[in-house]
Amino acid sequence: MREVFQSELAEVQSRLVEISRLVAISIDKATRSFNESDVGLAEEAITEDEKIDELTVELDELAITILARQQPVARDLRIVVSALRISASLERMGDLSTHIAQLARYRFPDKAIPKGLRSTFAEMGALDVVIAKMLTELLTSEDMKLAEIIRNEDDKVDALHLSVFEAVLGESWKGLAADTVDATLASRYHERFADHAVSIAKKVQYLGTGAWHQDINA
Amino acid sequence: MREVFQSELAEVQSRLVEISRLVAISIDKATRSFNESDVGLAEEAITEDEKIDELTVELDELAITILARQQPVARDLRIVVSALRISASLERMGDLSTHIAQLARYRFPDKAIPKGLRSTFAEMGALDVVIAKMLTELLTSEDMKLAEIIRNEDDKVDALHLSVFEAVLGESWKGLAADTVDATLASRYHERFADHAVSIAKKVQYLGTGAWHQDINA
Repeated sequence: MREVFQSELAEVQSRLVEISRLVAISIDKATRSFNESDVGLAEEAITEDEKIDELTVELDELAITILARQQPVARDLRIVVSALRISASLERMGDLSTHIAQLARYRFPDKAIPKGLRSTFAEMGALDVVIAKMLTELLTSEDMKLAEIIRNEDDKVDALHLSVFEAVLGESWKGLAADTVDATLASRYHERFADHAVSIAKKVQYLGTGAWHQDINA
Repeated sequence: MREVFQSELAEVQSRLVEISRLVAISIDKATRSFNESDVGLAEEAITEDEKIDELTVELDELAITILARQQPVARDLRIVVSALRISASLERMGDLSTHIAQLARYRFPDKAIPKGLRSTFAEMGALDVVIAKMLTELLTSEDMKLAEIIRNEDDKVDALHLSVFEAVLGESWKGLAADTVDATLASRYHERFADHAVSIAKKVQYLGTGAWHQDINA
C-alpha cells in the first residue's frame, strides 16, 4: 500500500512539473506577444492556458482519488493537500498569462505597451519567465535554494511594479488614458503572476527541506 | 464515528458562514471608505481582513484534521475538499476588500474615486456587499436560488466593470492619470470580488441541490 502511495505521489509531482512547464511556456508567449504586439503568440499563450486548465482539473481529480483510496495522514496528507493548492496557483498563473496576452490582442495592431515603459515591461516579462522556469525546476528537484531565488526575483518584479506606477503618476507621463489602463493592468498581472510563484515556493518549503523529496523518492 | 463526522462537518460549515459574514462586513466598510474617502473605515476593513486571514488558517487546519481523523470518502471527501477551496476564495475576497480600502487610504484626503464615476462605483460597491451577504446566506441555508441570484448580480458587476473602461477610454474623460489608475484598479478589485463569490456558489451547487445540506444535517 505504501509503495502504491509513493508511486501515486510521484505521479502527482510529475503532473505538477508538467503543468508548471506549460505555465512557463504560456507566460513566455504572453509576455512576448505583449512586448512585440504579436497576435499569433497571444493566441498560442491562450491555447496553452486551456491545456493548463484541463490538466489542473485532472490533477485535482487524481489528488482526490488518492485521498479517498490511500487515506493518508500526517505529512503524507499535507503533501496531497499542498498539491491541490499548488495546482490552484498554477491554474491562476495560466489565467494571468491569458490576461496579458489578451491585452496584446485588444490593442492590436497598436502596441499595448505604452511608450517609455517598454524596457520596464520587457524586464518584468523576462523576470516572470525566469520565475516560472525556476518554479518548474523547484517542483522537479526540490532544491530549496531555488525557492530563495524565486523570492528574490519576485522582489525585483515588485520594484518594477512600483516603478510603473511612479512613471504613470509622474509629471512627465504623456500617455493617453488607454496607455495608463494598459500599464496598470499589465503591471498588476505580472506582479500577481510572480506572487503565485512565491506562494507555491513557500508551500514546497513548508513541506520541509528535502521532506517532500524523501517522501516521494524514498 | 459517522455522528462525529457530521458534527465536525457542521463545525466546518458554521466557520465558513462566520468567515463569509466577516467578508461581508469587510467589503461593506471597504467600499464605503472608498466611496466616502473615510480613512477610519478603511482601517476597519483592513482589520476585518486580518481576522479573516486568521480564521481561514484555522479552518484549513480543522479540515485537514478531519481528513486525517475521519478519512472521508466519496461525497463526504468532496465536501471537505470543497470547504478548503471555499476558504481560499473567502480569504482572497478579504484581500480584495483590503486592496479597495488601501486605495481610499493612499489618496486621502483626496477622494480615490474619480469624478464622473462616483455613481458607478457606488453601484458596484453596493452589489459586492449584496453578493457577500447572499453568499453568507447561501452557505447558511444552501438555498440554491441564492446561487442563481449571485450569478445575476455578478453579471451586473461585470457590466459596470466594462462601463468603467468605456468611461475612462471615452473622449469625454478628463481624469488625470492617477484617476485612471484608481478607476482601473478599483474596478478590477470589485469585479474579482464578485467572481470569487460566483466560484464559491458554483462549488456549493456542485455538491448538489440539497446534498451538502443532507450530509451536514441528516
